[in-house]
Amino acid sequence: MKVLPINRVMQDDEGIAQIRRATNIGRTEHRVSTQDRTSRNRHFGGVLWMTGLSGSGKSTLAVEAETQLFERGYQVFVLDGDNLRQGLNADLGFSAQDRTENIRRAGEVAAIMSEAGMLVIAAFISPYKFDRERARLAARAHFHEIHIRADLATCESRDPKGLYKKARAGQIREFTGIDAPYEAPEAADLVVDTVSKGIEVCVSDIVNFVERRLRTPA
Amino acid sequence: MKVLPINRVMQDDEGIAQIRRATNIGRTEHRVSTQDRTSRNRHFGGVLWMTGLSGSGKSTLAVEAETQLFERGYQVFVLDGDNLRQGLNADLGFSAQDRTENIRRAGEVAAIMSEAGMLVIAAFISPYKFDRERARLAARAHFHEIHIRADLATCESRDPKGLYKKARAGQIREFTGIDAPYEAPEAADLVVDTVSKGIEVCVSDIVNFVERRLRTPA
Repeated sequence: MKVLPINRVMQDDEGIAQIRRATNIGRTEHRVSTQDRTSRNRHFGGVLWMTGLSGSGKSTLAVEAETQLFERGYQVFVLDGDNLRQGLNADLGFSAQDRTENIRRAGEVAAIMSEAGMLVIAAFISPYKFDRERARLAARAHFHEIHIRADLATCESRDPKGLYKKARAGQIREFTGIDAPYEAPEAADLVVDTVSKGIEVCVSDIVNFVERRLRTPA
Repeated sequence: MKVLPINRVMQDDEGIAQIRRATNIGRTEHRVSTQDRTSRNRHFGGVLWMTGLSGSGKSTLAVEAETQLFERGYQVFVLDGDNLRQGLNADLGFSAQDRTENIRRAGEVAAIMSEAGMLVIAAFISPYKFDRERARLAARAHFHEIHIRADLATCESRDPKGLYKKARAGQIREFTGIDAPYEAPEAADLVVDTVSKGIEVCVSDIVNFVERRLRTPA
């Protein structure tokens, strides 16, 4: 049983023009609890937030980790620019404000999905600490920041999508690492170094991290 | 294996200022497939979109159906104003434009979660056909519109949150059914009449609908 404080009167969803503060009004709800979902799935819902430069290996690792975790029984899903930019965030461009909003929404969606019991692997460059901290606040306890670390020179030499080349040629502006900053995490929950380690080891590190932190005791 | 057409060049998520059309560029991805998730869960992901007047019983039925479907093994989650307005849609107010955006985002989040294998019960007044049809397009095949039907007089007499009273007193403007329209579905996949039937029967109708439409063959 969950008692939700309602401090804004609203018509279920979208029906009210006025907002009223009334902090003493509560509403009792019986919902499937997070604990019920955790017991069912045998793992906690949560967010693995992968941050790193373009070309650091986020997408590759996210998809590989998803596959291996799925095979181990996890309810797991990769959230990234591919599935957000085409739908939920199709209204957003690439201004600084829109990029921040892109990450804010990603963090909120990841939080909702983790509340629903899923393990979300969110793969976003997310270069700003502020944006990542807000994502952490949305998901609360089960937010895990994973720094997919590779130096700029390596990422640029990989250049899987040819984007660094375009950025150097001035065809893309405000490209993270080139003419826009990347604020590396100072206290990531896990650092995965894709320069010194191969993909298989990196994926294994991530899977082991999840098994330690998010698997419930048998 | 899924080949994603990329018609906009973008830096994974949020990194590029320019957008370029290049419809002949594709990217190959190996992800856990929808079919894998369906086999695991033994039901299809999908969206039950509950629409109806305030007081029609959407929230009650959504939460009851969630509980019963969870007990039957479904990965199921209620998406509504409560969990969206506090987070993802906290930036939205109650203007006509913001209400439409509220529903657009709800539809997109429901679609993502259903892609992840979940059965989402979305409970929103969602009075406009246009908004509901857009939600249907987002979730594609596994979108099921459920009309939670009750006449205005009944809803107003129930008035569980005292909102009709406020609307009649002019304290809330543009309240659906009072001074804003409700466009009832003309071809809902399921109609649940909460005036002539009790809660238990209504929930049972919803659960049976799901078992028929979303349960995979054993």
